[in-house]
Amino acid sequence: MSRPPTAPWPGSWEPLARLALAEDLGRAGDLTSDALVPPDALAAGGLVARRAGRIAGMEVARTVFTGLDPRVSIEVLAADGDDAGAGETLARLSGNARALLAAERTALNFLGHLSGIATATRELARLVGDHPRIVDTRKTLPGLRALEKYAVRVGGGANHRFGLDDAVLIKDNHLRLAGGVEKAVRRARSAFGHLVSIEVEVESLEQLESALAAGADVVMLDNMSPPLMAEAVRRARGRALTEASGGITAGSIAEIAATGVDLISVGWLTHSAPSLDVALDLDGRGPD
Amino acid sequence: MSRPPTAPWPGSWEPLARLALAEDLGRAGDLTSDALVPPDALAAGGLVARRAGRIAGMEVARTVFTGLDPRVSIEVLAADGDDAGAGETLARLSGNARALLAAERTALNFLGHLSGIATATRELARLVGDHPRIVDTRKTLPGLRALEKYAVRVGGGANHRFGLDDAVLIKDNHLRLAGGVEKAVRRARSAFGHLVSIEVEVESLEQLESALAAGADVVMLDNMSPPLMAEAVRRARGRALTEASGGITAGSIAEIAATGVDLISVGWLTHSAPSLDVALDLDGRGPD
Amino acid sequence: MSRPPTAPWPGSWEPLARLALAEDLGRAGDLTSDALVPPDALAAGGLVARRAGRIAGMEVARTVFTGLDPRVSIEVLAADGDDAGAGETLARLSGNARALLAAERTALNFLGHLSGIATATRELARLVGDHPRIVDTRKTLPGLRALEKYAVRVGGGANHRFGLDDAVLIKDNHLRLAGGVEKAVRRARSAFGHLVSIEVEVESLEQLESALAAGADVVMLDNMSPPLMAEAVRRARGRALTEASGGITAGSIAEIAATGVDLISVGWLTHSAPSLDVALDLDGRGPD
Amino acid sequence: MSRPPTAPWPGSWEPLARLALAEDLGRAGDLTSDALVPPDALAAGGLVARRAGRIAGMEVARTVFTGLDPRVSIEVLAADGDDAGAGETLARLSGNARALLAAERTALNFLGHLSGIATATRELARLVGDHPRIVDTRKTLPGLRALEKYAVRVGGGANHRFGLDDAVLIKDNHLRLAGGVEKAVRRARSAFGHLVSIEVEVESLEQLESALAAGADVVMLDNMSPPLMAEAVRRARGRALTEASGGITAGSIAEIAATGVDLISVGWLTHSAPSLDVALDLDGRGPD
Amino acid sequence: MSRPPTAPWPGSWEPLARLALAEDLGRAGDLTSDALVPPDALAAGGLVARRAGRIAGMEVARTVFTGLDPRVSIEVLAADGDDAGAGETLARLSGNARALLAAERTALNFLGHLSGIATATRELARLVGDHPRIVDTRKTLPGLRALEKYAVRVGGGANHRFGLDDAVLIKDNHLRLAGGVEKAVRRARSAFGHLVSIEVEVESLEQLESALAAGADVVMLDNMSPPLMAEAVRRARGRALTEASGGITAGSIAEIAATGVDLISVGWLTHSAPSLDVALDLDGRGPD
Amino acid sequence: MSRPPTAPWPGSWEPLARLALAEDLGRAGDLTSDALVPPDALAAGGLVARRAGRIAGMEVARTVFTGLDPRVSIEVLAADGDDAGAGETLARLSGNARALLAAERTALNFLGHLSGIATATRELARLVGDHPRIVDTRKTLPGLRALEKYAVRVGGGANHRFGLDDAVLIKDNHLRLAGGVEKAVRRARSAFGHLVSIEVEVESLEQLESALAAGADVVMLDNMSPPLMAEAVRRARGRALTEASGGITAGSIAEIAATGVDLISVGWLTHSAPSLDVALDLDGRGPD
Repeated sequence: MSRPPTAPWPGSWEPLARLALAEDLGRAGDLTSDALVPPDALAAGGLVARRAGRIAGMEVARTVFTGLDPRVSIEVLAADGDDAGAGETLARLSGNARALLAAERTALNFLGHLSGIATATRELARLVGDHPRIVDTRKTLPGLRALEKYAVRVGGGANHRFGLDDAVLIKDNHLRLAGGVEKAVRRARSAFGHLVSIEVEVESLEQLESALAAGADVVMLDNMSPPLMAEAVRRARGRALTEASGGITAGSIAEIAATGVDLISVGWLTHSAPSLDVALDLDGRGPD
Repeated sequence: MSRPPTAPWPGSWEPLARLALAEDLGRAGDLTSDALVPPDALAAGGLVARRAGRIAGMEVARTVFTGLDPRVSIEVLAADGDDAGAGETLARLSGNARALLAAERTALNFLGHLSGIATATRELARLVGDHPRIVDTRKTLPGLRALEKYAVRVGGGANHRFGLDDAVLIKDNHLRLAGGVEKAVRRARSAFGHLVSIEVEVESLEQLESALAAGADVVMLDNMSPPLMAEAVRRARGRALTEASGGITAGSIAEIAATGVDLISVGWLTHSAPSLDVALDLDGRGPD
Repeated sequence: MSRPPTAPWPGSWEPLARLALAEDLGRAGDLTSDALVPPDALAAGGLVARRAGRIAGMEVARTVFTGLDPRVSIEVLAADGDDAGAGETLARLSGNARALLAAERTALNFLGHLSGIATATRELARLVGDHPRIVDTRKTLPGLRALEKYAVRVGGGANHRFGLDDAVLIKDNHLRLAGGVEKAVRRARSAFGHLVSIEVEVESLEQLESALAAGADVVMLDNMSPPLMAEAVRRARGRALTEASGGITAGSIAEIAATGVDLISVGWLTHSAPSLDVALDLDGRGPD
Repeated sequence: MSRPPTAPWPGSWEPLARLALAEDLGRAGDLTSDALVPPDALAAGGLVARRAGRIAGMEVARTVFTGLDPRVSIEVLAADGDDAGAGETLARLSGNARALLAAERTALNFLGHLSGIATATRELARLVGDHPRIVDTRKTLPGLRALEKYAVRVGGGANHRFGLDDAVLIKDNHLRLAGGVEKAVRRARSAFGHLVSIEVEVESLEQLESALAAGADVVMLDNMSPPLMAEAVRRARGRALTEASGGITAGSIAEIAATGVDLISVGWLTHSAPSLDVALDLDGRGPD
Repeated sequence: MSRPPTAPWPGSWEPLARLALAEDLGRAGDLTSDALVPPDALAAGGLVARRAGRIAGMEVARTVFTGLDPRVSIEVLAADGDDAGAGETLARLSGNARALLAAERTALNFLGHLSGIATATRELARLVGDHPRIVDTRKTLPGLRALEKYAVRVGGGANHRFGLDDAVLIKDNHLRLAGGVEKAVRRARSAFGHLVSIEVEVESLEQLESALAAGADVVMLDNMSPPLMAEAVRRARGRALTEASGGITAGSIAEIAATGVDLISVGWLTHSAPSLDVALDLDGRGPD
Repeated sequence: MSRPPTAPWPGSWEPLARLALAEDLGRAGDLTSDALVPPDALAAGGLVARRAGRIAGMEVARTVFTGLDPRVSIEVLAADGDDAGAGETLARLSGNARALLAAERTALNFLGHLSGIATATRELARLVGDHPRIVDTRKTLPGLRALEKYAVRVGGGANHRFGLDDAVLIKDNHLRLAGGVEKAVRRARSAFGHLVSIEVEVESLEQLESALAAGADVVMLDNMSPPLMAEAVRRARGRALTEASGGITAGSIAEIAATGVDLISVGWLTHSAPSLDVALDLDGRGPD
């Protein structure tokens, strides 16, 4: 899909943007700027990437600035999905100086976090090319799931479940409570015949065969060795999609991809990807 | 401080815990458990650290479980501030099986993120010993600031500003708008005489002298070379606290500490520390 | 599934219950009871079905009463999923008289609405027996979707999409914008390979064949005559699920079911089913 | 009043409109349109009444569309209070195609529900002419009371109490706890002398006389036979308003009206009136 | 009414209590107690009235303490409606010392404000005895209206309108827009026949006669001299209630009451009554 | 500081403005204006100060009017910080007549309360001139703290702590639990070395010396006689700021100021300052 991915409805994250501003402004507001900068002073500057990365969250950052002061103007030079080099200016801002300074950290916290996820996803996606697809997990940070999963899409990945309610995913703990793979898949199928996909985690070829026999849509191959995974992929072909899971890193991903698996899920994209370093550099130089 | 740090008031993060549960349960709830697990089935299991680390967020995790079902019982074996080894059981849970499964991911997302921050902080703190203190920044994730800063305290660090309103911190961008260091510090002092501390970022010994002359409480030594920083620390001693800042890592921190600086601030503790891997392992084994 | 359906997490509807109480109590509270009933007077009574129906929402009603006053006690005689006769007592309540009176209308508004949906669903489900399944739509009342869809399950129906985001459903308007059925299905398939089901509305056998060729998971047979629908069902068998849609009533449902279709979706279950008449009858008789 | 009734302050229902959009968009948004419709595609179409009815809620529908995308433009052809024929176009819409499709169902859910109430009210109002007035009850759906009562006004009805706090209404259950009619009315009168009206439900002429003697402002004649009601109306004339209540339908309303009663309250207007069928028909035809 | 007035439903003010706690605890909590008091230290003490007054808001105060820590125990010695002397202990508290200290100011801010209103109301009420009644206005502080009006009732006053929607009150500005008194009253009467009371402000005997002729329920005698007011009261007797309004103080109220007016409304009860001075005195004495 | 003080971020108080409007409009809106004023009628008028005072809260008032109807236009004649005379027009308003009338009371409640605080502060500030500074306390009304403290700044005062978390303030109750002054100050200093100021309440010269020896930043001289306070100020000079506290009024403030103390804190500025009387006078005169 060359078309850029669709961002979540602003109405869904604007409350978080307001909350984050409130979290930073506290009860007394920006003491430093209030003391040092005249209320009507204007300023201009750039959002600059200190390191190279894929940009995600620029519209959220814009909303933080304009949420604090609707008169701030932002010219976006690197939109979501663009790859920026180290030192590149991502956007030019101008407006009330106090507003730019007061919104800076909140805007950058969103932009850095989401661009960090997009950058990490893009790096993995580049290592595997068109197949398999890199997918995320539900290991997201509280309150940020929809934005984080959007950043994964921006990075070239695809989304796994958004929550417990949009597909069945039968894992280890379920099998301990519900009996074997085949019984569990059949039971889920009879509970939700219509529109709901069923995925099951398997650790052996026996479990795989049970899952396929019961009609699972997707099988998650959990922590399998590459040769075992390749055999599992071979058996599942045409019967179910296959997903590799479990501690996969940039170092191991090529070997996993070579098994022919359809999907590789990577939890750390959303819970541990380092933030992309972006800063606000105001123009000019005060009298000294 | 051997006493464990004080956690934020539960009333301040319970709405986030509920939001995170809602984010995961969606509109239709936990399809998998609803299909596979009888409504009254009981289960028990342990929260297990897959890697060693310092625990933070156990009470939040407890609240997620009991928020979903008040009858879930949790015996905490490793409380906030404890160091757990890889494979160690952090808590024993028992209660309604569906509730344990439905709350699992949300609880672990909090616990893993906060323990990751505490673990990273502790590692830096160990490298420097009693002096200087490791402090955090405002580079936090939206909505999570108070919890993340608590996790820094749990890891043995101290907190810098919680927001723009609890101290003055004059940085590069302010100086561009407000003139030189001395003028800025004096102006801030006259604006807020009472109870508000003033910190200013300096990049040279000249700026440092201006800051000290103007009566800054703290000087931030930004990206100084260790010898320059040592000289700055020497000059500031007894006149202002000194804070080292700028891209400090585990590799460089000992050299920075050796300059005698009072505080070392590290942004990545809160925006990029990797999550600690914690899992829920239910007891037992279903029929197969 | 003989097991009763799973109710939504109380945390998801408790805010609505509180909002509804606030909507009724206003700023000044229950003037009538405050004037006439001593603050500590106790009362007891029954929730009585004035007409026969299937009960849904009893736990919501309980939460309304206990949300107003935690000391109210409720003994449920007819739980969600039970069929009550006209005049049957569904629950016995006792507690502070003012609390019972003040919560009465709010609790009944939930219970009557949800039981009305369950009753209407059950009546359709009885007309068709085990096959096809009766399913709901997204034609729900604002803020009430999860509860209304739960009531459909209580009535023996199944749930269609909970929102725009849990499956693809290609309808008339989409086809006007996106070209023909086959192209649309293929495009959706390539956009969301994993876990997302695809349904497409078809009005002719030609469109049906295109949908099947493109691999749709479900075809919606919109406003087809029964003979045409029967032919469509025959062609789709083993290749896709079939769903009948469009103005289906108790009068026409048997003929639709006889076509062999898998699912019948009925919008009025959630937007127009009449409320079940339930009342609170307090015991006793005041002095006269 | 030939002037159209006043709609509730938008600030009071905009949160519900946003909640309803969020309920439909979920975490992942409109999968179908995102896959099939280019992000910048434009579309136009009409909101069309499938059946005749009185329109209510058009401004709410407009707010749903513009709440999702402020650039959507809506030309209203049938405003609140207008009577539309089957097949009539109520409004013309144009704007971003994805936005129109994503907001469609939410907007229609409001418009259909409120127009259904207005239509049902208008039908009853036509049956009785200028006198008596049709009034609603507190049997409304949770969260929707103010909008539903507005729809009753649009249909030509008037509003009874908005909540427990804007008038005293002494009913059966109160009398069981508080003693007889006369004592209850007097006690309420002494508790709230100023601005608060007092209504009491009576089932016999004896109770009626007590209520009138005690100075009730309104007497509710509950489930009385028409001849008894006519006698009650005769006795109350000039002393109190009279309100007929209890299972009144289109079939029985003329006979009730003929008793001369001032008000007829009808609960099903708000809890059971069927939705008015309104649809969005986009213009044009995709390539096939 | 010797029975104590009914307090607003806790569900209506608990969010304000939580907000007020959050406002005081900020992001970092109670620094002082965290530094000085061991986490498990217990303490006990009393809420003491520094000056005499009528108590209102004790349950709100209790909820603030237990909202911060459910284990705090409170024995109420002076409940709402009681008159306390200077130095009197209103309640005994015991529990976690940090919780008592952290909740203290928030609890006292509610208790002092509401008791201040009750005390001021009681003082006016004592000056006039049983007749006329002291009533409040809509001149309340944002967010606090229901609690403030409750405090007026606790002080022995009665409540005027709770908002713009529970009665018609025609004032000067309305008359400028709507024509004369008689026309305005008649128009309001025809708009809202049922349950809605109508009050009109009059400044002369001519306006009074128009209001009475048009059937106003209450006439507000605005800034009339006592002799004119007495004449107005005489003319209105048996036809409408009379309300004195406009800058009435403790000094002038007896003269106003002597006119025979039914109600005296006093805005400053809610917007300017001074807070009652209440403090928390912890028991004991630390080592020194 | 001749520059006007910075107002809180509108995002922080707009929810309170909406809540206050909702509190006044209730469920049925402004009955009076709906009945008497045509929906499209225009009106104009002025906000007029009935008494002289310093204005604070004009932007909040503006937001209330435009929040109800964005087309209302307001020309501000007396901005925050201006001193208005009795009878002076503070702002000219024009727009939809119903909107002006419906927002009037809510806007005035904010404007009167905040201007009352600013006026009271200004009066005290005038009595003491440039030194000492008048400061507020945490004795604020629930939900209004940031606005009230802004009003204090508008009146020429300065702000003490905004909450429990922005400085340490050791008071009587802490000393009872934590031991003597010196120990408490030292313990607080070791807990929060960086950026956090420490103030301690002292009642005697002995406690003062302990506080100074322990390095307190500020000493609060509580209820000291003027001679004792003068001696305390003399001893503290150059070592700590001094703050006078405890029942200080306009009558006693000059004597307190003469002691040379740096700060005088006055609780009643925020909890008991009387509202400034401001009214809306619409232009024109209706037909009579």
